[in-house]
Amino acid sequence: MRSEENLFRESAVPGLVCLGIDPGLARMGYGLVRQSGSAVSAVSFGCVETPSDMAFERRLLCLYEALGEQMKTCSPDFMCVERLFFGNNRTTAEYVWQARGVVMLLAAQRGLPVLEPKPAQVKMAVCGTGTADKTQVQRMVQRILALDAPPRPDDTADALAAALAGLAYYEYERKTGGRL
Amino acid sequence: MRSEENLFRESAVPGLVCLGIDPGLARMGYGLVRQSGSAVSAVSFGCVETPSDMAFERRLLCLYEALGEQMKTCSPDFMCVERLFFGNNRTTAEYVWQARGVVMLLAAQRGLPVLEPKPAQVKMAVCGTGTADKTQVQRMVQRILALDAPPRPDDTADALAAALAGLAYYEYERKTGGRL
Repeated sequence: MRSEENLFRESAVPGLVCLGIDPGLARMGYGLVRQSGSAVSAVSFGCVETPSDMAFERRLLCLYEALGEQMKTCSPDFMCVERLFFGNNRTTAEYVWQARGVVMLLAAQRGLPVLEPKPAQVKMAVCGTGTADKTQVQRMVQRILALDAPPRPDDTADALAAALAGLAYYEYERKTGGRL
Repeated sequence: MRSEENLFRESAVPGLVCLGIDPGLARMGYGLVRQSGSAVSAVSFGCVETPSDMAFERRLLCLYEALGEQMKTCSPDFMCVERLFFGNNRTTAEYVWQARGVVMLLAAQRGLPVLEPKPAQVKMAVCGTGTADKTQVQRMVQRILALDAPPRPDDTADALAAALAGLAYYEYERKTGGRL
């Protein structure tokens, strides 16, 4: 009886769960990370892919439905969606921004707070330096979450990195009341 | 009895209705235009505004809900959402693109075809020249739709212009099977 009660309690208060997102149209990475005390663990992670021969608006709908399903299953406490920076590739930027709009809409529909760190802030939180490269990020994510292999593709690793950064910055945001 | 039957028929087959959208975060213009034969008329038009002190994701949700309500009421046959071009104002661009993503999602959720003409194509369809200015567009929209006054603000006029362009290009798109 006692152990069941404990299990129930553990399941009812499972710690803080952050859903990290790496926005994209062809591939949208997601990573759910739970923090209990000082321990962090990956709840689930992956990448939603949409076929390039599908109409653009239908691809957005695919992303919306797949992510919505993830959010329903895992009930995150908040989200962390990296800000985007693009060079001169404006065409790609347009599509990724629109996909990001769908992610932000999902957050609002579920009433979840959203952190929006800059890429350098995510790298700083995960690797200790704002200029880490993709391989460094993948390795640190693997190490922190004690995964058997570096998460692939990049989009998944970046989403898990965003979730870890979200957890790291969450207290900071709560205390300052502002946004990153 | 006879007139009721006619009324019903008229309402059941009201001609082709296009919902034109001028995407924006602070102001999103919408305009529903119906074409019956060679006659066009404005069904409804306006502008959804979101307060600047509201969290970004909540503003997207406001736009989503208000536009969704319009679409439920007026059941458009298809949508016309102008492509966006920005100069160096990247910050504005980010937000408007994300708002546009929400519009495109709504189209996919309702299974509506979407035309995406370039701004010059909209001006060409409405004013006969791709380089018309805002005032010319407003006046032509007013004249074509026989409105008492030019539609204001600009966002509303641009949305009605998009709807008119959508109707003009619809047949072209259907015949070629491609996108503008």
